[in-house]
Amino acid sequence: MPTPFSPVHLHPDGLHILDQTRLPAEERWLVLATVEDVAEAIRVLRVRGAPLIGIAAAYGVALAARGSQPIEPAIHVLGATRPTAVNLRWALDRMQRRALAASGAGEDVAAALETEARAIHDEDRRMCDAIGDAGLSLVPDGAVVMTHCNAGRLATGGIGTALAPVYRAHAAGRKVHVISCETRPLLQGARLTTWELTRSGVPCTLITDSMAASRLAQADVTCVLVGADRIAANGDAANKIGTYALALAAHAHGVPFYVAAPRSTFDAAVPDGESIPIEERAAEEITHTRGAPLATPGVPVWNPAFDVTPAALIAGYVTDAGMLRAAELSLLAEPTAIGPA
Amino acid sequence: MPTPFSPVHLHPDGLHILDQTRLPAEERWLVLATVEDVAEAIRVLRVRGAPLIGIAAAYGVALAARGSQPIEPAIHVLGATRPTAVNLRWALDRMQRRALAASGAGEDVAAALETEARAIHDEDRRMCDAIGDAGLSLVPDGAVVMTHCNAGRLATGGIGTALAPVYRAHAAGRKVHVISCETRPLLQGARLTTWELTRSGVPCTLITDSMAASRLAQADVTCVLVGADRIAANGDAANKIGTYALALAAHAHGVPFYVAAPRSTFDAAVPDGESIPIEERAAEEITHTRGAPLATPGVPVWNPAFDVTPAALIAGYVTDAGMLRAAELSLLAEPTAIGPA
Repeated sequence: MPTPFSPVHLHPDGLHILDQTRLPAEERWLVLATVEDVAEAIRVLRVRGAPLIGIAAAYGVALAARGSQPIEPAIHVLGATRPTAVNLRWALDRMQRRALAASGAGEDVAAALETEARAIHDEDRRMCDAIGDAGLSLVPDGAVVMTHCNAGRLATGGIGTALAPVYRAHAAGRKVHVISCETRPLLQGARLTTWELTRSGVPCTLITDSMAASRLAQADVTCVLVGADRIAANGDAANKIGTYALALAAHAHGVPFYVAAPRSTFDAAVPDGESIPIEERAAEEITHTRGAPLATPGVPVWNPAFDVTPAALIAGYVTDAGMLRAAELSLLAEPTAIGPA
Repeated sequence: MPTPFSPVHLHPDGLHILDQTRLPAEERWLVLATVEDVAEAIRVLRVRGAPLIGIAAAYGVALAARGSQPIEPAIHVLGATRPTAVNLRWALDRMQRRALAASGAGEDVAAALETEARAIHDEDRRMCDAIGDAGLSLVPDGAVVMTHCNAGRLATGGIGTALAPVYRAHAAGRKVHVISCETRPLLQGARLTTWELTRSGVPCTLITDSMAASRLAQADVTCVLVGADRIAANGDAANKIGTYALALAAHAHGVPFYVAAPRSTFDAAVPDGESIPIEERAAEEITHTRGAPLATPGVPVWNPAFDVTPAALIAGYVTDAGMLRAAELSLLAEPTAIGPA
């Protein structure tokens, strides 16, 4: 894996992305030339992970400006791709403000938006580093870290959120082992987390989501580290479906459970987890894999993409503003502190 | 689905079984002519479910006797197929005792063993009915029952263990809905439970194992009903991997969690869950599906087939001797009460 590695790059011919739906079987890069291409890639999870979705959407707006398209429809199309991740909304709002400012000041809007999108990407990279530093003490030498879904290099513009402390510990020469829950239905743990960890030389073990409780009962797990798609003002955290079950199991075994996320994931406008919209996705994600049926034909399915872990189960929030507890999250709610300056 | 339906039948040419590894795509019946065929079918889960494994193994011993083969090696081969289910051991011990008695009395051993195997099958059918009766009050009109793996018609000689109260309630005209956890890695919930419920006209919804906690949080689940592969003297229950996580989630939401099993599943010789041997199965069950890779090639895997749910999380045991609480299980430990008379 190249260092610094990023699964999205803006080039003159468009936004180059690593198609995550093809991993680990195939490393296929796609060139997204239009806003619609970017929206499709986000919608079908070629680009996924809350921070990376924000970055890709920002580049999508820059692409629209580059093509002299109007900004508002581009923002609308991109904003409608995924309902849960707050970073998407945050990045689009920021691009919109920059477009207005550039236009008002008579600047070159396309150039300004390209610079802004690159800035969002760079800032995310630095936020990942800051999250890694904030969480480094959670990953001592010999640590076993359990994680769910993918909140690593493939989900962000840098070394990840949940995996950032792991990469920092590994870089510091500490022995660290990751237990990756496969993360049904889309298997981001099996396909993506084990792929990027293996590429980065970090040992890992794959389990099904249903095995996490048994593994936690074996008392060899140091901590659980997961990412988040949106964190409410009270600390309730929406993340990939299965996170809540993992938090309950960690709690039952006294294993500390941490949520790692940049400040842009904290949504002060949402009071608690019940107010976070949860995306429901298509039945075929559960009933089929690679087009082949796994289940009884026609069986009804419930397929929420996320769940909400209550703040009471979260030992701490590993952020680019340091390690915080739920009671301290109001510090992030000051307007100047939401997102990078 | 024919009534009475059984996934195993002894015929003159061998043991006919419905190959459960092919469901739901294909209803393929196989004819197992030898003990080795039966052992292979149990080992690779063509026949699965603790009670059905015991029945199939008993028929396997009868097949050996019919072929004038020695009984001891047959019992040895069959006994080595799966380590966790106690019914297997129980059925083989019973066949061995019958063989000795028949031989000592100068009876036709083959005829005696065929009769004994059919008796084990018939008794299991009646045990399922008794379990259904014992658990009927758990499934009132309008009930939503969550289950894991398959503990239904495909796992037993009758209407199942965990699903028996559901079928009884359905037959009594009550409206009942089952939420079936897909049960990774082998998807017995997705493939088998939804198949037999659909065939039987019972409405069901499929979810991934990781969604169960979220669904329990929605407060529309009446109870959780699961089967068991072995229950220790203190009430700790070994069942399909994922059962423990489900029990923790049910407990967190105050949803009663019941284990349904015939008396032959209770193992008075095992004091608690820690003493139950847990089978670990091949990595490919997690990394591949139908031969296609799902995960990063070569990634290490931990694949325990079962987990142990502590008695403290179990509201009751739905048995063919009625509904019992953990403190009452010692009643089953009297020698005359273990297994059918």
